[in-house]
Amino acid sequence: MNPEDLQKLLEAVANGRTQVSSAMEQLQHLSMEDIEYAHVDHHRSLRKGFPEVIFGEGKTADQIAGIMEKMVPRENIVLVTRVSGEKAGHLNEHFPGAVYHEDARMLILEKSPPRVQGKGSILVMSAGTSDIPVAKEAYLTAQAMGNRVEVVYDVGVAGIHRLFAHKEAIDRATVLIVAAGMEGALPSVVGGLVNRPVIGVPTSIGYGTSLGGLTPLFAMLNSCSSNVAVVNIDNGFGAGYLAAMINRE
Amino acid sequence: MNPEDLQKLLEAVANGRTQVSSAMEQLQHLSMEDIEYAHVDHHRSLRKGFPEVIFGEGKTADQIAGIMEKMVPRENIVLVTRVSGEKAGHLNEHFPGAVYHEDARMLILEKSPPRVQGKGSILVMSAGTSDIPVAKEAYLTAQAMGNRVEVVYDVGVAGIHRLFAHKEAIDRATVLIVAAGMEGALPSVVGGLVNRPVIGVPTSIGYGTSLGGLTPLFAMLNSCSSNVAVVNIDNGFGAGYLAAMINRE
Amino acid sequence: MNPEDLQKLLEAVANGRTQVSSAMEQLQHLSMEDIEYAHVDHHRSLRKGFPEVIFGEGKTADQIAGIMEKMVPRENIVLVTRVSGEKAGHLNEHFPGAVYHEDARMLILEKSPPRVQGKGSILVMSAGTSDIPVAKEAYLTAQAMGNRVEVVYDVGVAGIHRLFAHKEAIDRATVLIVAAGMEGALPSVVGGLVNRPVIGVPTSIGYGTSLGGLTPLFAMLNSCSSNVAVVNIDNGFGAGYLAAMINRE
Amino acid sequence: MNPEDLQKLLEAVANGRTQVSSAMEQLQHLSMEDIEYAHVDHHRSLRKGFPEVIFGEGKTADQIAGIMEKMVPRENIVLVTRVSGEKAGHLNEHFPGAVYHEDARMLILEKSPPRVQGKGSILVMSAGTSDIPVAKEAYLTAQAMGNRVEVVYDVGVAGIHRLFAHKEAIDRATVLIVAAGMEGALPSVVGGLVNRPVIGVPTSIGYGTSLGGLTPLFAMLNSCSSNVAVVNIDNGFGAGYLAAMINRE
Amino acid sequence: MNPEDLQKLLEAVANGRTQVSSAMEQLQHLSMEDIEYAHVDHHRSLRKGFPEVIFGEGKTADQIAGIMEKMVPRENIVLVTRVSGEKAGHLNEHFPGAVYHEDARMLILEKSPPRVQGKGSILVMSAGTSDIPVAKEAYLTAQAMGNRVEVVYDVGVAGIHRLFAHKEAIDRATVLIVAAGMEGALPSVVGGLVNRPVIGVPTSIGYGTSLGGLTPLFAMLNSCSSNVAVVNIDNGFGAGYLAAMINRE
Amino acid sequence: MNPEDLQKLLEAVANGRTQVSSAMEQLQHLSMEDIEYAHVDHHRSLRKGFPEVIFGEGKTADQIAGIMEKMVPRENIVLVTRVSGEKAGHLNEHFPGAVYHEDARMLILEKSPPRVQGKGSILVMSAGTSDIPVAKEAYLTAQAMGNRVEVVYDVGVAGIHRLFAHKEAIDRATVLIVAAGMEGALPSVVGGLVNRPVIGVPTSIGYGTSLGGLTPLFAMLNSCSSNVAVVNIDNGFGAGYLAAMINRE
Amino acid sequence: MNPEDLQKLLEAVANGRTQVSSAMEQLQHLSMEDIEYAHVDHHRSLRKGFPEVIFGEGKTADQIAGIMEKMVPRENIVLVTRVSGEKAGHLNEHFPGAVYHEDARMLILEKSPPRVQGKGSILVMSAGTSDIPVAKEAYLTAQAMGNRVEVVYDVGVAGIHRLFAHKEAIDRATVLIVAAGMEGALPSVVGGLVNRPVIGVPTSIGYGTSLGGLTPLFAMLNSCSSNVAVVNIDNGFGAGYLAAMINRE
Amino acid sequence: MNPEDLQKLLEAVANGRTQVSSAMEQLQHLSMEDIEYAHVDHHRSLRKGFPEVIFGEGKTADQIAGIMEKMVPRENIVLVTRVSGEKAGHLNEHFPGAVYHEDARMLILEKSPPRVQGKGSILVMSAGTSDIPVAKEAYLTAQAMGNRVEVVYDVGVAGIHRLFAHKEAIDRATVLIVAAGMEGALPSVVGGLVNRPVIGVPTSIGYGTSLGGLTPLFAMLNSCSSNVAVVNIDNGFGAGYLAAMINRE
Repeated sequence: MNPEDLQKLLEAVANGRTQVSSAMEQLQHLSMEDIEYAHVDHHRSLRKGFPEVIFGEGKTADQIAGIMEKMVPRENIVLVTRVSGEKAGHLNEHFPGAVYHEDARMLILEKSPPRVQGKGSILVMSAGTSDIPVAKEAYLTAQAMGNRVEVVYDVGVAGIHRLFAHKEAIDRATVLIVAAGMEGALPSVVGGLVNRPVIGVPTSIGYGTSLGGLTPLFAMLNSCSSNVAVVNIDNGFGAGYLAAMINRE
Repeated sequence: MNPEDLQKLLEAVANGRTQVSSAMEQLQHLSMEDIEYAHVDHHRSLRKGFPEVIFGEGKTADQIAGIMEKMVPRENIVLVTRVSGEKAGHLNEHFPGAVYHEDARMLILEKSPPRVQGKGSILVMSAGTSDIPVAKEAYLTAQAMGNRVEVVYDVGVAGIHRLFAHKEAIDRATVLIVAAGMEGALPSVVGGLVNRPVIGVPTSIGYGTSLGGLTPLFAMLNSCSSNVAVVNIDNGFGAGYLAAMINRE
Repeated sequence: MNPEDLQKLLEAVANGRTQVSSAMEQLQHLSMEDIEYAHVDHHRSLRKGFPEVIFGEGKTADQIAGIMEKMVPRENIVLVTRVSGEKAGHLNEHFPGAVYHEDARMLILEKSPPRVQGKGSILVMSAGTSDIPVAKEAYLTAQAMGNRVEVVYDVGVAGIHRLFAHKEAIDRATVLIVAAGMEGALPSVVGGLVNRPVIGVPTSIGYGTSLGGLTPLFAMLNSCSSNVAVVNIDNGFGAGYLAAMINRE
Repeated sequence: MNPEDLQKLLEAVANGRTQVSSAMEQLQHLSMEDIEYAHVDHHRSLRKGFPEVIFGEGKTADQIAGIMEKMVPRENIVLVTRVSGEKAGHLNEHFPGAVYHEDARMLILEKSPPRVQGKGSILVMSAGTSDIPVAKEAYLTAQAMGNRVEVVYDVGVAGIHRLFAHKEAIDRATVLIVAAGMEGALPSVVGGLVNRPVIGVPTSIGYGTSLGGLTPLFAMLNSCSSNVAVVNIDNGFGAGYLAAMINRE
Repeated sequence: MNPEDLQKLLEAVANGRTQVSSAMEQLQHLSMEDIEYAHVDHHRSLRKGFPEVIFGEGKTADQIAGIMEKMVPRENIVLVTRVSGEKAGHLNEHFPGAVYHEDARMLILEKSPPRVQGKGSILVMSAGTSDIPVAKEAYLTAQAMGNRVEVVYDVGVAGIHRLFAHKEAIDRATVLIVAAGMEGALPSVVGGLVNRPVIGVPTSIGYGTSLGGLTPLFAMLNSCSSNVAVVNIDNGFGAGYLAAMINRE
Repeated sequence: MNPEDLQKLLEAVANGRTQVSSAMEQLQHLSMEDIEYAHVDHHRSLRKGFPEVIFGEGKTADQIAGIMEKMVPRENIVLVTRVSGEKAGHLNEHFPGAVYHEDARMLILEKSPPRVQGKGSILVMSAGTSDIPVAKEAYLTAQAMGNRVEVVYDVGVAGIHRLFAHKEAIDRATVLIVAAGMEGALPSVVGGLVNRPVIGVPTSIGYGTSLGGLTPLFAMLNSCSSNVAVVNIDNGFGAGYLAAMINRE
Repeated sequence: MNPEDLQKLLEAVANGRTQVSSAMEQLQHLSMEDIEYAHVDHHRSLRKGFPEVIFGEGKTADQIAGIMEKMVPRENIVLVTRVSGEKAGHLNEHFPGAVYHEDARMLILEKSPPRVQGKGSILVMSAGTSDIPVAKEAYLTAQAMGNRVEVVYDVGVAGIHRLFAHKEAIDRATVLIVAAGMEGALPSVVGGLVNRPVIGVPTSIGYGTSLGGLTPLFAMLNSCSSNVAVVNIDNGFGAGYLAAMINRE
Repeated sequence: MNPEDLQKLLEAVANGRTQVSSAMEQLQHLSMEDIEYAHVDHHRSLRKGFPEVIFGEGKTADQIAGIMEKMVPRENIVLVTRVSGEKAGHLNEHFPGAVYHEDARMLILEKSPPRVQGKGSILVMSAGTSDIPVAKEAYLTAQAMGNRVEVVYDVGVAGIHRLFAHKEAIDRATVLIVAAGMEGALPSVVGGLVNRPVIGVPTSIGYGTSLGGLTPLFAMLNSCSSNVAVVNIDNGFGAGYLAAMINRE
């Protein structure tokens, strides 16, 4: 239930078109009965400004479809993250309008394109080509939440001139998301170039002492650039979500 | 090297004013010279909007004083972090105007109060009383950078009604900084209440399996609230710095 | 060896019925024989009040069936934990009365429903829907051991009003089991609401720095609520078993 | 917000006493206000049955004294844990009636002895003599909370006949607390002997691969006895507190 | 280079048969050539008393067969460890006399039974039934090396009377091998009962905080019994081999 | 573009055979446009002396083929590392001249054999036969970069005379690469024998406490021989590449 | 009470010189009353063949003296390990005959030299000079238990000819103890030279990735020599004790 | 014994001035008797080209002085690493010519300056000012071994233009040593700029997730630049030593 709907209901009570008892039933469900089912999302729209996002890993296609069925009637956009191609195929049969992004493993169902908002734009960068799926997840999330988003891929520090070639894109961003695996050095270098918040996303790309992404995570947390914060390993969705929060006017 | 420069060089080769060997040398370092262009932009004040901050740990009082002497004539504010009371005493002899904050172990020298700016205000929270020094470091940093900052201390999740008593402060903040040790649960709970970015600061408060702060760090990175990003353990300074970046108009 | 036996032995030595060498042998093993006295007390049913539970992982269906064949004639109930659907299928052919719970991966064979006992009731909670299999294992175990058990699923701290909607169930429980993965914060919050023992069950749900469940485990061990104890990662069975012990009159 | 309040609000809207905009503001925070309802229940004594315990580590003697001054007028008993002998000396000057237990590093101020309650008794065991301080902390906590408590020290598994000599004490306990460092094997052996809940307290006693207590912690979590739960390393207080909760009638 | 060779070389220099430069070259490698003297001693059979054992993991069936072909003509016995059933099938086609032990994943080819030797006998114990494959590997290795070996399985500490039922076997062993996963407590208890060397073999049996066997490993290394040494996780072969070394007359 | 090509282009500009505009186009792509695609390699040849190497893991056969198509026209040699046999089969269809080395999982396409250069020769050693794939990757890399390379396999420290049998090969090497898993002791022993740089390559061969190669890695970093440096676990390519750098005249 | 004493007592009962009641009193204390105090040692002599050893760390000088006072009248030898020089000074005042070994931090009180026994001799080796304190603790323990012990110090693998210079001592030992820090490679090399059991003692000597001794520990557990077992980090006492067990006839 | 001495001895044998028996004695001791004392260094000069370096940590001033007394008569240079100022004061009393470098904690005694050799020069870089002590240790070691060495300090990646200002020094180095703590990113960036070997030295500078230097270590091992090898944390000496080996003609 978005603020407009709430206002309409209260006005209906005020001018007598809706009974107090009827309004009570609707409003009590807002935080109570709603919670026992998936209805919780409605209050979430009021509270968080974006509907719940479905974490697809560890859920069956049927479970995901069940949740989507409850959300689709009421929300303009539904996001499913970490969903395999196979599950996405099943879901597409139920929701033909949903678009599956294979590299980012995201399924997005939009009734209409999100209204572009935010004070500026978000730049998503990746250190290597293998980090692109994580970067892409951040990109799609931020875009779905109504942001202008640019991307720059494959600008790792071993060939640092590649990075400097994108100086203008770096300078014009309001928030920067930097996905990097292996030694995770890119957020530090980027953070040193800008006076904007940088969100580091460590990826599990690498082997041996990359420790499944713990090494780039720890490296980013020790960044000598003070404007870097970090999200969980491979958590492109979280980075995109947080960037959208920061970019809000 | 911009296109005009390249054209000039090649024309100079074409008309014999420049030797092939000399041109070769310049072109082999093409990426270097491009990068040196950042040198023009190298004044940190211009680039980052705030002077360098002195990390006091591992530096002698004399070394810190030496750096301060070079900065004081040119900057309105000088921050020294992680400085012991003993060192601060020595520094105060040279810089009587500097104020030492013992709990946060910060020394601040301001010629004039910073101009308050930023689109909103920053709220700094701590889960326990023992986390206050870290929260205080965040508070002082954000304030020195010209932000409106509020604080709420000792609102850990074991007595969650304490947290809800500060609902209004939570609601009006533009950015929230949440310092917590032990199980590090507070950022998740706070993140679930707001639609604003939350910066989690894990602290080394705790014992046994708190692992010197790794446990609250990992807990925050696994937050089920998507609007939480994290900085290094006990890094109150970084949290305050990043919050200031986010709060910029 | 009780005092009477010792006296008899020494008298036998004194009157020559027993050789010194034979007495020496018996006395050198004094602590052994004392310990064997526990052998009289060795029937697990007598000692522990519940028959042995079969840990299905790493055993073949034939091995499990072999153990069940020996137990079924003597016990009212047989529990097999961590058994795959395929193995359960084989076992059901031998034991048609056994019921397989797919989500909890448990097979339960009851001759008659367990007698409900215990001073109160047990509440099993899960932070997310993905934690339900672990919670379900706790639920089934506690129920099979003759307890009244209630469940509340999907009440993680990111939407904390969902938790408070179940305040009455929380208040009436004698023991609470709380399964949570990711940051593992729920047991702390629940522990802060009640004056009853809370058993935290960390789950391996999560990715990156959840470290396969070590992070929620460590977080729960650092709970700022003092009435929380913890069992092994994903050990729903152990939580249910322990809760039953606590709930005993 | 309880149902009556909600009804009143809506009626006020219906008859024009409350503006739509004002009602909207209150209803948007529906879950907050619901949660604030816990505020009514905020007296810890009412909620938890025992006053707050002061964690002495990381607090100055003055800070502890300040908190005690607020508690003493209202509570029959005040516990301070992890307090050094030096701090205790200072505190004794303010509170001459407080008793300091050096080995357990606890300060206890009792106006009158706690009323003994609980359905049975608690047995506190230690594997070695070096584990006694942790065991003692558990003992004093449980006793201060009004329980009958027995102790058995130095019964580690390397001389297992020592353990069996205390079979009767083991059998008559309602809850058992077992403190052990090094390999942490004692809770498993004790757990196998009883049908009561066993709380394992890993201690930091040991060296090398004891890893500051992580090894006995992990060993206890992997106990082949199913009636064992675990608290944080060296957390004797938590074990005693939880045992008191379990022992409640 | 032995003393005689050195004397010959120097005499050759003295009488001019060898150039100074040539002698210099040989002498600069004095320590090398001395070390090469171990080459005379290079027959493993002479040095170690048992032929090389083939580690099957990571080798193809063809590679194993190739090595066996070189060993079989010269050795009475050939052991292959960690070999899958599939590879063993291929090997049996080449070496029909080889016997495959599926549970221990060992292939053994004996021309004649090993001569039984050793001062006493070896006892192999396992804490649980799941530890038997590791224990079996130790058993087969020790037996193949000519030792009398007894076995006692499934005597874990949670039902400690099971262990004491085997007191006589424990007492008569010269060396004891104890395989245990989970909390790895059995070697400590056994070590406390005997005055003989105990070899602990941690197994990877368990889940969660058993950490793939690191927990029982660390627990055994912290044994409060001083006569316990440890081999690598799941290394039944090494335990059997070492026990055979200890049992040598 | 190698230095010779650059010189030719500039001479063509100098003597008028090539227009400035045409030269500009070629040279602008050197660091700008090149970066957005795979063209970056050209400047890499100038800067690093060897074309980019394709890391095959995590790329599809099509992606690898796409990059190769851009490189093959301009480079004498293309290396693809960590490529499976299946992918290599697909690539061989497009590039029939490429040779696949199954054990090292490398695909190498050479137009003409590399010019042998370097001040001396490189010796690649492996401790066990299972370490050979990693050693082979080092061997092929160093050879492709124009070095004389020798190999000595299976000279682990448990039979140290095997190592000394290769004294002459050890003495004549300019750089030594030593691959070892398990306890990773070989680099220390080899380092003690020579006055040349030794590159240790820890391998993931082993089980239990080899921790996937972390143990030999840490052991090599603690080598009591001071002339040992280390690369990542299983990183034969990096060792070969670095050895080639060291062997440069 | 050693076996000879027990035999004398029983013979005195058999021939009437000692009353049954008097013998009962002495023997009942053997495992019962003894356990509640420190008397437990007596049965230990019968069971383990060596009196209890006092672990000095974490005990006050008074506590150690108290235990010694109970042991000295009845035992020929008392060992105290990990005792500081300061505590040893206090103890020497009470027990002037005790000898303190500063490097090994052991205090030894012998009424008469131990009877030399054992089938052969024990060789204690150290890789570096810094490992000598640990090696010395092993040496003193084994010697106090009645073994012939030889030592060879500072023969680390970086100068491996130093090791081979001691080939004869290595060959004649029945058991070998090898203490090594840093990369912990020495036990593997020594294990490859002999057909006897080798006890590796990892030491905490080293820095960085030696991880306080975990690296040599893990390296030794992964030894490619199969006759190597390992004790805890810096546990020279345990190595000496175990070697004495192995060396028993 | 250096090559010249050996040549003189052999020539004396050749022309009869020295008896064969006398020469034998000297040469046999070269690897034998030498080893039992500190004489081992002599053969080390022949084998490694540089005398033994004394690791000062964990040795008393007297022990260091004892070793120095044996080395000084025979060596041109003696290095002592990791020696405190206090110990250095004592040593200077015995060896007034020794120079103590406080920041690098090295004591160097040179009879005459080392002969400068090597094919090129070594560049030592540090990321931060706090890394300078480690960098200085590398610098002094390489210099003492006869190399031309340059230094560039405080060029961390957060202000990357600082690095590029030293492009010429970077380009002319034959080997580069890069010391960095925190996120350890500098070696990757430097490695991407040059075609020379880069030795990364992780330092323990940092806090929280720098994990005492493990994070920069792991980051460097995962460098996306292939010409980077790594030494132990804070091991400036090893880096300098290895660079000298690489720089040898």
